[in-house]
Amino acid sequence: MVGVVGERAAAEELYEIAREVGRQIAARRGVVVCGGLTGVMEAACRGCHEAGGTTIGILPGNDATEANEYVSIAIPTGMGEGRNILLVRSSDVLIAIGGSYGTLSEIALALCLSVPVIGVRTWRMTPGTGAAAAKDPIVRVNSAHEAVAAAWRHIEAAIK
Amino acid sequence: MVGVVGERAAAEELYEIAREVGRQIAARRGVVVCGGLTGVMEAACRGCHEAGGTTIGILPGNDATEANEYVSIAIPTGMGEGRNILLVRSSDVLIAIGGSYGTLSEIALALCLSVPVIGVRTWRMTPGTGAAAAKDPIVRVNSAHEAVAAAWRHIEAAIK
Amino acid sequence: MVGVVGERAAAEELYEIAREVGRQIAARRGVVVCGGLTGVMEAACRGCHEAGGTTIGILPGNDATEANEYVSIAIPTGMGEGRNILLVRSSDVLIAIGGSYGTLSEIALALCLSVPVIGVRTWRMTPGTGAAAAKDPIVRVNSAHEAVAAAWRHIEAAIK
Amino acid sequence: MVGVVGERAAAEELYEIAREVGRQIAARRGVVVCGGLTGVMEAACRGCHEAGGTTIGILPGNDATEANEYVSIAIPTGMGEGRNILLVRSSDVLIAIGGSYGTLSEIALALCLSVPVIGVRTWRMTPGTGAAAAKDPIVRVNSAHEAVAAAWRHIEAAIK
Repeated sequence: MVGVVGERAAAEELYEIAREVGRQIAARRGVVVCGGLTGVMEAACRGCHEAGGTTIGILPGNDATEANEYVSIAIPTGMGEGRNILLVRSSDVLIAIGGSYGTLSEIALALCLSVPVIGVRTWRMTPGTGAAAAKDPIVRVNSAHEAVAAAWRHIEAAIK
Repeated sequence: MVGVVGERAAAEELYEIAREVGRQIAARRGVVVCGGLTGVMEAACRGCHEAGGTTIGILPGNDATEANEYVSIAIPTGMGEGRNILLVRSSDVLIAIGGSYGTLSEIALALCLSVPVIGVRTWRMTPGTGAAAAKDPIVRVNSAHEAVAAAWRHIEAAIK
Repeated sequence: MVGVVGERAAAEELYEIAREVGRQIAARRGVVVCGGLTGVMEAACRGCHEAGGTTIGILPGNDATEANEYVSIAIPTGMGEGRNILLVRSSDVLIAIGGSYGTLSEIALALCLSVPVIGVRTWRMTPGTGAAAAKDPIVRVNSAHEAVAAAWRHIEAAIK
Repeated sequence: MVGVVGERAAAEELYEIAREVGRQIAARRGVVVCGGLTGVMEAACRGCHEAGGTTIGILPGNDATEANEYVSIAIPTGMGEGRNILLVRSSDVLIAIGGSYGTLSEIALALCLSVPVIGVRTWRMTPGTGAAAAKDPIVRVNSAHEAVAAAWRHIEAAIK
């Protein structure tokens, strides 16, 4: 289960990266877990769906029909942004592509729960005190291919 | 209702800032809402309690007794870090003091929900794309006094 | 912390029972926890408020202003009926007065979590198999006075 | 998406009914959604899995490995019994087989949210006032076959 998070209104370049991430996850027989809406979420589902994979949309609202058309399994939570943690808990690894504050919350929750985070043009954060890791906790990559390869290194390490 | 968030294992200096924040919130007849545990959460509750105020602890676990001793009202959620959003939703304004990834998730969720954030030596974040505000969305201050004054400016602006 | 649950559109007689329950909880220095809306929830808050007590409204929506006017502390959860379990987890004992399906879910969740339930004209339930208690798990009473007295017997037994 | 709920420690007869329900859901190309643990949950997943279908386990804990072995997609929520509402929100119709208080809470939440409920030897409930339906809101059946047929009547009616 690979979580893919990112902005709701992605520019074309990011959209295509997310779509390729979805395709490569399907090619490796992974499942895409996302927030089920538009932008990066839709693109990752679309790529995964195009490559024959399964996609899960953990939706903020009460209505399964708010899912984008590439979601195979819609989980309407009725929790609004409170659903972000469910997405993170369901993910073995999280790929963040761009993103606004919702994505930042998902990155932070993943780091709280020790879910590894791979980032493509996403948030950079610096703690104000020594309470968090001094070095960057995100594995930064530049392409869909590198992101999925990095995700699988984490998954394989976890299996061992 | 003023949310106060920050690290669980705060150094003495941050602890004293949080305690003074709690005292000044009580002095202005505000209520402290926090995660109910140790560190900054305890310090804010302690200061508020010492000044005669009410404190609310939105706890991650199932058991009200995990609250620190200065919590007047314990809400055990059984949701783990999923409780962070409840704390943010209950806050008219959020004061973040230092903090690790849990605090970062609370800052991000507050920004998602348009809850104003005041920061004392807390996270700095830079988006990877144009999806989020280019300028710093946190009001940065250096003391307990400035933090509470900034919080009240937001509360008074919201009332108008 | 005494949870008070019941119907949103209570007839006058039930409303007055709930109000008297609120008054007597305040008289015993308890705190009323409820869903924060109308009917039995409002009545219990009103009675408690009139007797100088503190009331907590765990709201289904995102907006603190949806609370009835007798709520001292509003917790907007944004979780809809998903907030019912938070109310139950925050209660040392639950008093159910009448009620529809939301109340039934709160009774059931309380029984799951071993929170004692006192009932005034509320649901009767019979399991279809031997999986649940054969005898009625609810302490049934007929008046506000008896309900609060029964609640305090549970609270005192728990303290010992 | 058909929710299947019931007791964690089901006797053999109920287990076999749940397993047959799972098989028939798969035969009609439905997806089983359940709590992901033992008893009726396991049986429904097992039957569905044996017939080549997809099963979703909405787990109470943080750990995907607590799912029974027939769950295709595990969603660890970390919300304890708070996850019951997620299961109900994800279901187009709910089949309740036997069950203890957790099941009763799921039935009640389904009725709150207007999700139709089919029951096999499950709870009977009588309201204490006129607040809820006077007549039985559950469609009662005696076999797996009847349960799935009744579920599909609801699904087909909803589509029209």
